[in-house]
Amino acid sequence: MNIISGGVCAAKGFKANGIHCGIRKNKSKRDLSLIYSEKRAAAAAVYTTNLVKGAPIAVTKSNIADGYAQLAICNSGNANTCNYNGVEIAEQMCSLIADATGISSKDVVVASTGVIGEVLDITPIKEGIPALVEGLGDNSDLAAEGIMTTDTVKKEIAVSFNIGGKECRMGGIAKGSGMIHPNMATMLVFITTDCAISPDMLQKALSTDIQDTFNMTSVDGDTSTNDMVSILANGMAENEMITSEGEEFNEFMKALNTITVYLCRNIAADGEGATKLVECKVEGAVSKEQAKLAAKSVICSSLVKAAMFGSDANWGRVLCALGYGVKDLNPNTVDVSFKSAKGEIPVCVKGAGIPFSEELAKEILLENEVEILVNLGVGEYSSCAWGCDLTYDYVKINGDYRT
Amino acid sequence: MNIISGGVCAAKGFKANGIHCGIRKNKSKRDLSLIYSEKRAAAAAVYTTNLVKGAPIAVTKSNIADGYAQLAICNSGNANTCNYNGVEIAEQMCSLIADATGISSKDVVVASTGVIGEVLDITPIKEGIPALVEGLGDNSDLAAEGIMTTDTVKKEIAVSFNIGGKECRMGGIAKGSGMIHPNMATMLVFITTDCAISPDMLQKALSTDIQDTFNMTSVDGDTSTNDMVSILANGMAENEMITSEGEEFNEFMKALNTITVYLCRNIAADGEGATKLVECKVEGAVSKEQAKLAAKSVICSSLVKAAMFGSDANWGRVLCALGYGVKDLNPNTVDVSFKSAKGEIPVCVKGAGIPFSEELAKEILLENEVEILVNLGVGEYSSCAWGCDLTYDYVKINGDYRT
Repeated sequence: MNIISGGVCAAKGFKANGIHCGIRKNKSKRDLSLIYSEKRAAAAAVYTTNLVKGAPIAVTKSNIADGYAQLAICNSGNANTCNYNGVEIAEQMCSLIADATGISSKDVVVASTGVIGEVLDITPIKEGIPALVEGLGDNSDLAAEGIMTTDTVKKEIAVSFNIGGKECRMGGIAKGSGMIHPNMATMLVFITTDCAISPDMLQKALSTDIQDTFNMTSVDGDTSTNDMVSILANGMAENEMITSEGEEFNEFMKALNTITVYLCRNIAADGEGATKLVECKVEGAVSKEQAKLAAKSVICSSLVKAAMFGSDANWGRVLCALGYGVKDLNPNTVDVSFKSAKGEIPVCVKGAGIPFSEELAKEILLENEVEILVNLGVGEYSSCAWGCDLTYDYVKINGDYRT
Repeated sequence: MNIISGGVCAAKGFKANGIHCGIRKNKSKRDLSLIYSEKRAAAAAVYTTNLVKGAPIAVTKSNIADGYAQLAICNSGNANTCNYNGVEIAEQMCSLIADATGISSKDVVVASTGVIGEVLDITPIKEGIPALVEGLGDNSDLAAEGIMTTDTVKKEIAVSFNIGGKECRMGGIAKGSGMIHPNMATMLVFITTDCAISPDMLQKALSTDIQDTFNMTSVDGDTSTNDMVSILANGMAENEMITSEGEEFNEFMKALNTITVYLCRNIAADGEGATKLVECKVEGAVSKEQAKLAAKSVICSSLVKAAMFGSDANWGRVLCALGYGVKDLNPNTVDVSFKSAKGEIPVCVKGAGIPFSEELAKEILLENEVEILVNLGVGEYSSCAWGCDLTYDYVKINGDYRT
């Protein structure tokens, strides 16, 4: 597998664009994105588990119930959620873009992100669609911009991989960066591939993958109302279609996982206000579930996040988070280390502090990618979760709590 | 019932003190507190549910297993948690103070609060105890200071009430203000009363009360390792002892609830970095449990908290928090209003936004005590939770998200 350029346009037959149509007041911010496949594609998606759901979620679900779609349209600046006419507006978005591209309005993945509870005006979208369609091309970067909300950097990636002797490609874009606390799936992520795979297997691949990727990512503990991960597979790589598990499905899963882990790490690193990516790697758990609970509890702890901002090796907060996050925790078997490009330093062995160099610990934690390594010491299961630091005032107090 | 002065010394036979003994480097900060009852008292406590527990928790639990205690000692600056010798140190604290006051070391409630994972040196405590005991008197305020960590204000209150013709008194002190997210109980709270009540009924009163008070308070989502609520009842008011449920037990419960609600509100208002108290009142729920989940989910949401800091009537975030916090929520029956001393403003009816004056909403939310009123519209149960706003950078971004 190779990392390649091109984002969601890397796979054969996919074009994209992103424009400013006027939903946002700031004219320098793109607010409408389109991803288009020359051929109708197998489609799969996973959605937020929040019971308050954006209207576009309902429309997308219905549209891809048959397993197929041909394009994805997404606006930023307004979530089209908690409005009396949300479904109507989302359906209008589908009809307008379907008419402009000559496809069926039932083959549209539609998404919105932004403020909740304000009516989404269809006018700027309607007026923007001709330019949006006209500009379709190798423009993954513009589409990635158009879905950004408080994100400070674009998130896109692509890979090439081999299925049955045919070169396939897969690419993805994502938006963060607040209201990020998945449960089933969250955030807005669009993935495209030219690999031929049946809708069932595509859904299976996505639903399996997110358990260890997007569902293990948190910025602020708030599970969003609107977010979803969708994937379109148009088959233009001409490999023999993947219709069951096996070697080729595994290759596909590997490519998908490369895309999703990259996007998770980048969403976490660009969390609102964040200065660094915090990765918690847990091993030695009695079950996969325990490993996941442990890793997520650590990266979700406000106090751990604040300590990471202050580059403070306050491992007691890691123990605290494990203590309320994991069922049946035995504190007396837990080891904790901190790690980064500057090295690794053990700070807690069997649940108790050990002497360590505060200087080296600081140097390690000052890096912008930091790992918290936890060994629960009771089993063979492991997990990883991605989060970020929590910055400022709350923070001004907690980041320096020990000194 | 009347609010009176005196804190934990308001009830007959109770004295207190708080000194700087040297656990903290800052000499102007008291770090050792004592509450002493002339008579051995019925004792009850509730403890954190965090599986990583401070050593003092284990020692207190064992000491009051017989239902009685005579004093409470508490240091700040070090939590005596996750150390190889924690229990030994906590037991030494008990022996030293027992010897100095001539009581049994088994009649001591012991507590510690501060950094986790650093060995607690017994020396300053040992050297401080003579002055601590010598200064015992009407010094609830000094004891309240001695248990503070990042708190910016002391938290103390007292009430008088009548049981069977006898005037009884009850008072309490508390410390906040980070790692506050109770589950069973959390924070450090010491309550004293001269009311005569059996240990069983005292425990029942406390365990019942905290379900709707301390368990409904959150500052940062982190359930502490060390915290507990304890109560001593020395019977010196000479009322007939309360040994069962009934009118007098109810009177006692009312007094206790007045103390605990006051302390909860003050702990929340003084949450780390907070500028205001946020109270979420939920009604119209199908069950008490649903009402509590709803209220807690709203006050725990980082995004709601950030909006409150920015005095931004971003009610969509309230709906979002309800959507992931409440099982079986029907968004289409939910009403939301904001309220404070400046008035009340409805912002969402039946799950959709309604036009409202942004100016008036701002004026209401600029107050330092703000209520979020939620009607789930499906039942008869209600609940209340207390929290605070989340301030700065994370905050700089989210507080102004809509504009």
